[in-house]
Amino acid sequence: MSDPESQGSGARRRRNPRQSGTRSATPAQLPWRKVENRYRPVDVFDDEQVEQIHDASMRILEELGIEFLSPDARDVMVRAGATLDADGVRLRMDRGLVLDAVAKAPSSFTLHARNPAHDLVIGAGRINFACVASAPNSSDLDCGRRPGNFIDFENLLRLAQSLNIVHLTGGYPVEPTDLPVPTRHLDCYLSYIRLTDKIWRPYALGGGRIEDAIEMAAIARGLDRDGLQRSPGLLCNVNTNSPLRVDGPMLDGMAELARAGQAVTVTPFTLAGAMSPVTLAGSLAQQNAEALAVIAYAQLVRPGTPSIYGGFTSNVDMKSGAPAFGTPEYARATLAGGQLARRYNLPYRSSNANAANVPDAQAAYESLMSLWSAVMGHATLILHGAGWMEGGLVASFEKMIIDAELLQTMAEFLAPIEVNEATLALDALREVGPGGHFFGAKHTLARYETAFYAPLLSDWRNFESWREGGSKSALERANGIWKQMLAAYQPPPLDPAIDEALEAYVARRRESIAQAT
Amino acid sequence: MSDPESQGSGARRRRNPRQSGTRSATPAQLPWRKVENRYRPVDVFDDEQVEQIHDASMRILEELGIEFLSPDARDVMVRAGATLDADGVRLRMDRGLVLDAVAKAPSSFTLHARNPAHDLVIGAGRINFACVASAPNSSDLDCGRRPGNFIDFENLLRLAQSLNIVHLTGGYPVEPTDLPVPTRHLDCYLSYIRLTDKIWRPYALGGGRIEDAIEMAAIARGLDRDGLQRSPGLLCNVNTNSPLRVDGPMLDGMAELARAGQAVTVTPFTLAGAMSPVTLAGSLAQQNAEALAVIAYAQLVRPGTPSIYGGFTSNVDMKSGAPAFGTPEYARATLAGGQLARRYNLPYRSSNANAANVPDAQAAYESLMSLWSAVMGHATLILHGAGWMEGGLVASFEKMIIDAELLQTMAEFLAPIEVNEATLALDALREVGPGGHFFGAKHTLARYETAFYAPLLSDWRNFESWREGGSKSALERANGIWKQMLAAYQPPPLDPAIDEALEAYVARRRESIAQAT
Repeated sequence: MSDPESQGSGARRRRNPRQSGTRSATPAQLPWRKVENRYRPVDVFDDEQVEQIHDASMRILEELGIEFLSPDARDVMVRAGATLDADGVRLRMDRGLVLDAVAKAPSSFTLHARNPAHDLVIGAGRINFACVASAPNSSDLDCGRRPGNFIDFENLLRLAQSLNIVHLTGGYPVEPTDLPVPTRHLDCYLSYIRLTDKIWRPYALGGGRIEDAIEMAAIARGLDRDGLQRSPGLLCNVNTNSPLRVDGPMLDGMAELARAGQAVTVTPFTLAGAMSPVTLAGSLAQQNAEALAVIAYAQLVRPGTPSIYGGFTSNVDMKSGAPAFGTPEYARATLAGGQLARRYNLPYRSSNANAANVPDAQAAYESLMSLWSAVMGHATLILHGAGWMEGGLVASFEKMIIDAELLQTMAEFLAPIEVNEATLALDALREVGPGGHFFGAKHTLARYETAFYAPLLSDWRNFESWREGGSKSALERANGIWKQMLAAYQPPPLDPAIDEALEAYVARRRESIAQAT
Repeated sequence: MSDPESQGSGARRRRNPRQSGTRSATPAQLPWRKVENRYRPVDVFDDEQVEQIHDASMRILEELGIEFLSPDARDVMVRAGATLDADGVRLRMDRGLVLDAVAKAPSSFTLHARNPAHDLVIGAGRINFACVASAPNSSDLDCGRRPGNFIDFENLLRLAQSLNIVHLTGGYPVEPTDLPVPTRHLDCYLSYIRLTDKIWRPYALGGGRIEDAIEMAAIARGLDRDGLQRSPGLLCNVNTNSPLRVDGPMLDGMAELARAGQAVTVTPFTLAGAMSPVTLAGSLAQQNAEALAVIAYAQLVRPGTPSIYGGFTSNVDMKSGAPAFGTPEYARATLAGGQLARRYNLPYRSSNANAANVPDAQAAYESLMSLWSAVMGHATLILHGAGWMEGGLVASFEKMIIDAELLQTMAEFLAPIEVNEATLALDALREVGPGGHFFGAKHTLARYETAFYAPLLSDWRNFESWREGGSKSALERANGIWKQMLAAYQPPPLDPAIDEALEAYVARRRESIAQAT
């Protein structure tokens, strides 16, 4: 019970100041903790169906092939035995090549943060929640929806740092479109490192951006590149240009990270009916083909590269073409994706996705459908865990808090129920007797402060008290909570010498980029 | 595909008129269907822990006993071997008595509606969703919260009839407090029968109310009492006065229904920290003891009585005493309850519960937490499936629609993914090729109209279109949908002779009740 990392029944939570009638600058929340999933996964396929999907995906790579838009990547694949089409971009590869390469990936690994307390185990039954990433817009209740900007970028990072249930930042929470493109990544990396001490994710893109991420990650942790290679701390996410095409800069950026010993995630963007077949089986076969082909490449670049199998199969509204998330199709595909990842002993990445335009009931139920299926599909990395709206077009400050509540709820849900003589409580029942109540029982008094999950956002007051308190909806309460949290934010400690070295690195790079352009 | 009862991928849904740009009086929804759960349940306990809970519950009944506040019930139990305390109300019974009796309950059974298309199988992997029941207040967005009344009662029944995903009405959706108490049940039963042709639930209470339910159910189905006994169509729900006390009129009403061959549900009201121990293990042991003791009584009254094991264990906010639902504790207890019900081969009843004061994000995520755990705990009867708010204090018209979306989503989620050569779609992928899209593919065109779930409530339009459409939240859209649905409502056909017989019965009973009071 004294291990601050252990998973429990909320026992180590601060008393909720909102409930005790006083106000506090820091809303009560669960402590940082590892989240372990000890429930059996929910399987949507039987073993034979998994093999059918597997076989179809291998036939896709063997018979149809996949385009790698990087000459380097094609060279590596051809040297390993793939054949190149006459068009010079499409590779066909047999299942032996793919499966041998994929088998070199570890089934679990550790990612190291600049604060070792925030190291993460990927795989091995762990669940790691990331905050929203890559949204072009941001939004809050006061100022509405606006193009992504650096102020929001930094504030969302501050929230990601403040929320203990957010294990890592999963990319730029919002794109800071007000920063110049050639040097934007330098500003962003510096903010990642200064404002948070959790794992961060650079984008697998060329132009020196991965090189800068590697250098800055090494400086931040006081390591040289060898040291960083031995204790990886960066991960990227490669989205394929489904169907059956992979972007060149993405492949090259990923290869650079793999060579530096860092981790890669490969997530085909298989929206059934648009970028993949309208049938889930077909979309999953395509997802599997694309994910495994790219993971095989990462393994050929550097055997043993920590690799995560990403699943993102959903459907579009066939009338409008609009993507949908948290749908019945999405939930089943998410569970199926977990079965496929397990087939290859690969850690599994999923998301907390929804397509709502406002953080209302729809946003909540679509997100929770996504989250339940991610958890029950045994995803170990849940990107976009907090703050994602509109199918990824918006990072919402209020949704960040709503999702933090969902993530905390999931973490507590996964904690075991203790069963022993004391918890079975026959003595308490004997003390209270038929028709009595347990409020004053010794058994209750010894446990009541820590017995149950205390919510971050949910309001359980009766209607009258709730109305007296201003009839605030979850959305309005979330608005108050993120503001409280930002007001109380303190940057994590950073050695001034490291900060100086980072600043010097950024200044140098800014100059050389300015000269090059 | 032509079986209207079969479970599928939404193929038999009407085209959604809201999406095709025209307005229609009847919002598109899934057709009536049986919902089957083919996923393995999620277990929170290992087998040994289940046995520990079982053993503790048996010790509760053996050592502590339980109060049955009905002389008839005590007589039956004592004749079966239970011992009566000196206080004359507390029974102690050994596990042999309880388990032998419980073993006489069927593991599944059929409930018959006046429309045979709406018969329900309870158990056997089926999931049956009921609408909200027993709320003292009702609410909608236009008129707010008000005491339950007969107009709302009837309108909620009309919605329950209109929503295909609602398999049964689960009690009075709201208490019609404007009707006189002595004859209220007659008005309610008549409305059940006239406004819906689905299964309905009388309250297990004395004073002739069960007798009236039996008589009117028989008339409605053109049966005599023997016929009704052979094809049960009524079910009740007995809540214990936890801890360890059961109300007399409830026991007597239940016994009367059992003698008439109808079905019973027994649901201990175990709010951990208030009516049961603050520990989940203790609350579940108490739930198990109370549920099995009352089910044993039902079996002693009439062996083979269709009996449902109800679980409702949740926690209270220990600061305020307010009940909470859809919490991590609730979800784990719900899954655990399923394990216990399966231990005794009993069908399992759960709920779609939440404690929110407004149908917002909190209402949605608490409800979906409840619903997922009910489904993954293999509940076969989900009471309060649509419309429940404020921990049961309100029946909400908008929440009815929000929940219908959740229930439909669950039903589609449980449909299998077809895996075969056609759905694996290699030909489609060959046709489209790398970097293409599937919108115009033959494979897509042949399937797009029925490929995916079309939502009742969710709005997947992009932000700009959504804003042009009035920026309506899920709550506001739900408001429009229930009004459309009520406007389009048509009562189900009822033989005029039966209607007349029911009216005559009610008139006769009204008179005799008036004379008696």
